[in-house]
Amino acid sequence: MDKTGITPTRKENYAEWYQQVIRAADLAENAPVRGCMIIKPNGYQLWETLQHKLDQAFKATGHVNAYFPLFIPVRFLQKEAEHVAGFAKECAVVTHSRLQANEQGVLEPASPLEEPLIVRPTSETIIGEAFSRWVQSYRDLPLLINQWANVVRWEMRTRLFLRTSEFLWQEGHTAHATAEEARQETLRMLEIYRRIIEEDLAIPALVGEKTASERFPGALSTYTLEGMMQDRKALQLGTSHFLGQNFAKAMNIQFVDVDGKAQYAWTTSWGVTTRLIGSLVMVHSDDDGLVLPPKVANVQAVIMPIIHDEAQREQIEAYCDQVQRQLQDRGKGLRISLDKRAMRGGEKRWQWIKRGACCLIEIGMKEMESQSVTLSWRDTLQRETLPLTQWVATFADGLKAMQQRLFERAKSNREQSTQRISSVADFYQFFQNDGGFALAYWSEDPETEEKIKSELKVTVRCLPQAFASERGACLFTNKPDCPLAVFAKAY
Amino acid sequence: MDKTGITPTRKENYAEWYQQVIRAADLAENAPVRGCMIIKPNGYQLWETLQHKLDQAFKATGHVNAYFPLFIPVRFLQKEAEHVAGFAKECAVVTHSRLQANEQGVLEPASPLEEPLIVRPTSETIIGEAFSRWVQSYRDLPLLINQWANVVRWEMRTRLFLRTSEFLWQEGHTAHATAEEARQETLRMLEIYRRIIEEDLAIPALVGEKTASERFPGALSTYTLEGMMQDRKALQLGTSHFLGQNFAKAMNIQFVDVDGKAQYAWTTSWGVTTRLIGSLVMVHSDDDGLVLPPKVANVQAVIMPIIHDEAQREQIEAYCDQVQRQLQDRGKGLRISLDKRAMRGGEKRWQWIKRGACCLIEIGMKEMESQSVTLSWRDTLQRETLPLTQWVATFADGLKAMQQRLFERAKSNREQSTQRISSVADFYQFFQNDGGFALAYWSEDPETEEKIKSELKVTVRCLPQAFASERGACLFTNKPDCPLAVFAKAY
Repeated sequence: MDKTGITPTRKENYAEWYQQVIRAADLAENAPVRGCMIIKPNGYQLWETLQHKLDQAFKATGHVNAYFPLFIPVRFLQKEAEHVAGFAKECAVVTHSRLQANEQGVLEPASPLEEPLIVRPTSETIIGEAFSRWVQSYRDLPLLINQWANVVRWEMRTRLFLRTSEFLWQEGHTAHATAEEARQETLRMLEIYRRIIEEDLAIPALVGEKTASERFPGALSTYTLEGMMQDRKALQLGTSHFLGQNFAKAMNIQFVDVDGKAQYAWTTSWGVTTRLIGSLVMVHSDDDGLVLPPKVANVQAVIMPIIHDEAQREQIEAYCDQVQRQLQDRGKGLRISLDKRAMRGGEKRWQWIKRGACCLIEIGMKEMESQSVTLSWRDTLQRETLPLTQWVATFADGLKAMQQRLFERAKSNREQSTQRISSVADFYQFFQNDGGFALAYWSEDPETEEKIKSELKVTVRCLPQAFASERGACLFTNKPDCPLAVFAKAY
Repeated sequence: MDKTGITPTRKENYAEWYQQVIRAADLAENAPVRGCMIIKPNGYQLWETLQHKLDQAFKATGHVNAYFPLFIPVRFLQKEAEHVAGFAKECAVVTHSRLQANEQGVLEPASPLEEPLIVRPTSETIIGEAFSRWVQSYRDLPLLINQWANVVRWEMRTRLFLRTSEFLWQEGHTAHATAEEARQETLRMLEIYRRIIEEDLAIPALVGEKTASERFPGALSTYTLEGMMQDRKALQLGTSHFLGQNFAKAMNIQFVDVDGKAQYAWTTSWGVTTRLIGSLVMVHSDDDGLVLPPKVANVQAVIMPIIHDEAQREQIEAYCDQVQRQLQDRGKGLRISLDKRAMRGGEKRWQWIKRGACCLIEIGMKEMESQSVTLSWRDTLQRETLPLTQWVATFADGLKAMQQRLFERAKSNREQSTQRISSVADFYQFFQNDGGFALAYWSEDPETEEKIKSELKVTVRCLPQAFASERGACLFTNKPDCPLAVFAKAY
């Protein structure tokens, strides 16, 4: 049959397909509060898995967690000029500390604050203020802090996980005695992100440096990891910023160095958000619904008893229990579900396909009697029947193989839609056709940047690390000795 | 010597002692934002440990985590009359979505919102709205959700951990088909809290039901766990609320029951906060600083090399490495630190005493040569020297014993300051002297409640479960057949 699990298909309407995959997998929904989302249990479980992997990696590299206030006094924000310009336009402002009923009984804001507070859009300033007190001597450095928190940026056009007014993230903030150490930290965290994004999320990451216009407000260098979605648009997956001494000067983070001289510290910040869940959906899912890499999937295998005759329920379910037990005994961390709900087998199977269970195991009389299982992997959906013992022995390998297949498929998708461009005409044609990642030498000329943005909705994603040694004449200005840049439409 | 690690002592000034213990242990500090705190890495690690224990217990009883918006539209809050009365007086109100520089260059709120939003003080209404959409049939019940989040209540008098404008917590929210099931859930979660508070935090919990005046705004029953601090005041450690159908009616959480009839659901909510960290400080610490129960302590043992002669540093440190390795091999989860910092031995020991390391291990030439360790447990601080092998073999038992000692000491403190009261004169005398927990029969008479509050600053903490079967004549009104209540001064 032609019918797909999700309507519309990716080809018919990619944006709507994305919403429908999330809905069918029950990951999240729009909240009744403008621009906010509710992360439902299935979506939140993915976030917990990501949190755990990230948190372990941060701690293994000497970082510790702390928690700073949700509210930032406006005067703090104002201390770093670029920073305030970047965030003042879209922030939630708290102005009152009480509600009071008016004559009609309607609650209205009361008790105005002396100074308005903003809900943190990011915490460089409030954490910088603390660092200015915590850092006195070179012995206090490096200071390696991470925070798990919610942040608010008042976005006008929102989309579940990808862009919401409130989102969850982690933000690392570190202070160092030298520029060199701070640069190393920036790149160390970038590499941790790359490893987790590629090895756990199975998303190939294009790693590079942002050009001036796309830099974090107040940073000297912003490094980024860009993924390619199935509609060939880029999604920024994480960033790591070398802040130089900008925030140290703005917030007065000074230390006495080994020679007794006062110095400003060098700081970094780096973060990833719940947007990563959106990228998982966009990179791996298909027209039947969610597909998840086994390392992060909520359900790595679901066992479904297929009951045609109620008299057989007990023995089939007993066999299913045994399958679950044997599988679970192979590894404590395995995420196995046994779904005994009274529901038509076909309907149940479709539900788990849409939810992205990695391996669907159907067990009826035939399987029970032959001590076997019928299974299909989510990415191929091809059924095969295997002896139980063989299946149990090879399940972990099956998960690894699926993880690898998803990564290879995403990589091959990206490669097919990545092109070296050597003429402006080709550049326009590339993006007027299917588009993707365009590689071209570029002089960071602001005029062409503005032009391609307005004409093609294309922006520079980064100067990729992998091509850092290549130089050539700028595609647009012909200026010699320019680095290679990656251009794309982006979320 | 008489000098204590903390100045002032508990006896001299308990409130100031509490602040100083937190400062010396580097747990938290006041933020430059009114009423907010910065939870420093040492404090946040305690929260992570508590989170882990609570989260495991919630999941083991079928709960799943989700995340709901930070902002609540005022019209939601208004739907439950008692609820709004309870929270409107102290909340952060967001009224604008942008900052704009005025003529003097000062940033001012701009782009007013059509409807003001409040920062969640608790999430019954916003989660109730979601439940009204998620619950359709009895098959959707029970719905067992937990959220880890920050909340804001605009407190006027704040104190680190105990009462801050922003704090971290978990809030469980569940919906059930019957009142009986919801009541059972309320008590199940209360019991989980009791177990963790008593077994992990080593704090004896007085478990009981709140009387009307102390109930959660909108609840039918509020159950509480009350701890006694060392100044004999009560601290509410956690609450679990049976909400009846109040919020289901306010937010329209309806389901079709087995017979096809529309019914309102029965809901519960329950929560504990970062206040638990304050209770750990207040119950166990002494005049030398933080004392922590081993099950939650950040550092269960700290190994300190004592170097009198730099020529011996290498061999002493090598022996310390060996001690750490052997200890760590006994249990993967053990939290052992080896402190090789160049710092005077006495100063270093004091620092770890103030930070609440459970076991302080000092190793110099003598210990190295005799393959022994010199150690002291934090709660007794008595030094003893043991052969290394014996020490390693008994370390886990030592932690257990210390855990037990702290619980027993806290329990004995509570018992010494708990008294049955049978006359009003005795009641007044009890609180005019040292005070503590006063047990007396009580008719829930609002007049005496007001009177003892204004005259003695004493409130009813709860009707304790342990005495639920006892009835007697009210201490104040002489009304017969009244339950036993616990009265105390409270934080």
